[in-house]
Amino acid sequence: MADRDRALLHRAVALARHSVDAGGGPFGAVIADVHGTIVAEGNNVVTVEQDPTAHAEIEAIRRACRTRGSHRLDGLVLFSSCEPCPMCLAAAWWARLDGVRFASPRTAAAAAGFDDGRLWQAVSSGNTAPELPVHQIPVADAGTEFRQWLERMDRIPY
Amino acid sequence: MADRDRALLHRAVALARHSVDAGGGPFGAVIADVHGTIVAEGNNVVTVEQDPTAHAEIEAIRRACRTRGSHRLDGLVLFSSCEPCPMCLAAAWWARLDGVRFASPRTAAAAAGFDDGRLWQAVSSGNTAPELPVHQIPVADAGTEFRQWLERMDRIPY
Repeated sequence: MADRDRALLHRAVALARHSVDAGGGPFGAVIADVHGTIVAEGNNVVTVEQDPTAHAEIEAIRRACRTRGSHRLDGLVLFSSCEPCPMCLAAAWWARLDGVRFASPRTAAAAAGFDDGRLWQAVSSGNTAPELPVHQIPVADAGTEFRQWLERMDRIPY
Repeated sequence: MADRDRALLHRAVALARHSVDAGGGPFGAVIADVHGTIVAEGNNVVTVEQDPTAHAEIEAIRRACRTRGSHRLDGLVLFSSCEPCPMCLAAAWWARLDGVRFASPRTAAAAAGFDDGRLWQAVSSGNTAPELPVHQIPVADAGTEFRQWLERMDRIPY
């Protein structure tokens, strides 16, 4: 178990190194099943693809879902070269992954210029960061979409 | 300003309602500039596209980035029919959006079956949810990708 986990994390780190070689960010991730078989891989292509959501973990999750033909990844585990940021942690949660393993702590990423410390602070305090003000503005039709949703008999809850 | 914000939130709610009509989730989002001009729109297509990251806000962010040709959305604001979940809030942060406005609070989404309360708890406590165990496992080559990154003279920090 521990050896298999380490082998998958080595693969994630190798993907991170390949990513740097290819002009991407220094992050890699793999998603594997309980037997250690890799279902999908990803690396950080934020600047390459001009997509701020294209972290290694998100890339791997989206690919695993395409492979599986489902928006759920129950039974699979995410292995990341570095501790996932709140976006990737939340994506893993929505994907219903069984767990997350990572090699380097977030402090190592911060030392390389990828500091998500303020983002962690913002989500910890429930949404307040001076650089990203979040406000509710009530509008008359707010919530009508939820009533419409609950009236749909063929809705797919998730 | 307030009227313009409300008009953009009405549009986000309209997108959420169209989304339900089309079999998607009851969430819509728009990204607009300081003049109120819409740059991109999105709706929740998690089950339609079998992609757990395809929340309305993520869809809008990815489209706005394609339109702008950049992974940064400085100067733009996100308008969402509902309070963004931690994944979408973090994506807005990484995209360097200027702010977020939303119509319905997260409790309204929870009442419709989309409860991210446990996810907020997990990110608030810095990564611990019983249903998604997160563990660090040290491996020998951990962090070598960051040294490689810092040695690249042509790296694009973000």
